[in-house]
Amino acid sequence: MSRPRAKKDFPVGEIRRYLEPGPVVLVSSRHGGETDIMTMGWHTVLEFVPSLVGCMITSGNHSFELIRASRECVINVPSADLIDTVVGIGNTSGTEIDKFAHFNLTPDKALKVKAPLIRECFASFECRLHDDALVDRYNFFIFEVVKAHVAPSPKHPQTLHYMGDGEFMLSGKIVSRRAKFRPGML
Amino acid sequence: MSRPRAKKDFPVGEIRRYLEPGPVVLVSSRHGGETDIMTMGWHTVLEFVPSLVGCMITSGNHSFELIRASRECVINVPSADLIDTVVGIGNTSGTEIDKFAHFNLTPDKALKVKAPLIRECFASFECRLHDDALVDRYNFFIFEVVKAHVAPSPKHPQTLHYMGDGEFMLSGKIVSRRAKFRPGML
Repeated sequence: MSRPRAKKDFPVGEIRRYLEPGPVVLVSSRHGGETDIMTMGWHTVLEFVPSLVGCMITSGNHSFELIRASRECVINVPSADLIDTVVGIGNTSGTEIDKFAHFNLTPDKALKVKAPLIRECFASFECRLHDDALVDRYNFFIFEVVKAHVAPSPKHPQTLHYMGDGEFMLSGKIVSRRAKFRPGML
Repeated sequence: MSRPRAKKDFPVGEIRRYLEPGPVVLVSSRHGGETDIMTMGWHTVLEFVPSLVGCMITSGNHSFELIRASRECVINVPSADLIDTVVGIGNTSGTEIDKFAHFNLTPDKALKVKAPLIRECFASFECRLHDDALVDRYNFFIFEVVKAHVAPSPKHPQTLHYMGDGEFMLSGKIVSRRAKFRPGML
């Protein structure tokens, strides 16, 4: 289990840095006194301002109902050392266990939503439902990130990228090609 | 420049293996005799059957018009050795140059769409527009992958994951936790 890291305010318009590379995330939710966590690999950034993220949340998931009813969630990014927690959360149901208690995770109070942040994750993005137009047809939620919290170090935590079939890709080296970009194209 | 690799048929219902980890992709398109390529980092798998992928394509992009008019494209996954080609394609406009010619890429004939495959990419997914409900509001296209082509080796090509600000994460080690998954949860 990784040590809790202190997170700091982070600009909501810059969260693509953490989501665009495609990590598996842990989505925490709360409604009517119930709390849940689910794993999610199907998400994409959609806009900088407002800061929009699209998420496919399977309707069979207990979290689906909590998120649809509360119209809120927190997207938390786990580092690679949490791999077994990520797998455990994805292979259990919130109807049967309290995932925070069962997986020794710490719920921290969010600032703008009722769903808790997961302290052990290095980044947590508080989200409010922005558009439910595709929820019925595709279980696709468009959220606005209304508050972001990121641990300032390490600068590049290793992340988990799910490939299906029980396999994960671990993030590797970071390289910059900044000098080859035109201004405005970064 | 990487050597062209021979691709083979791949099941369209299993393409999450290549897209869910979040690589930057090259989208090729063709309409009215014009061909273009764009880089894209904002995409997500949405469904296995039919095989659906959601893509945010900026409306200022020349490819946007070709894709909207033809209702087709090919999503190609480049390996990490193509990093400078990927950056070059993202920092030029198809209104000014022929991207295949300029970047020494080879257009291969697709089987089900008119847009060409990019031979130098290790995976190419032929796509038809499935739902344009969110195109006007978010530039978000929902495509169905109607044919998939993947090079059988190497098994795990190194991929590029864009973080913004000119920085890329290169994919690292692959680890399996298959034994810890419940059947049906893989």
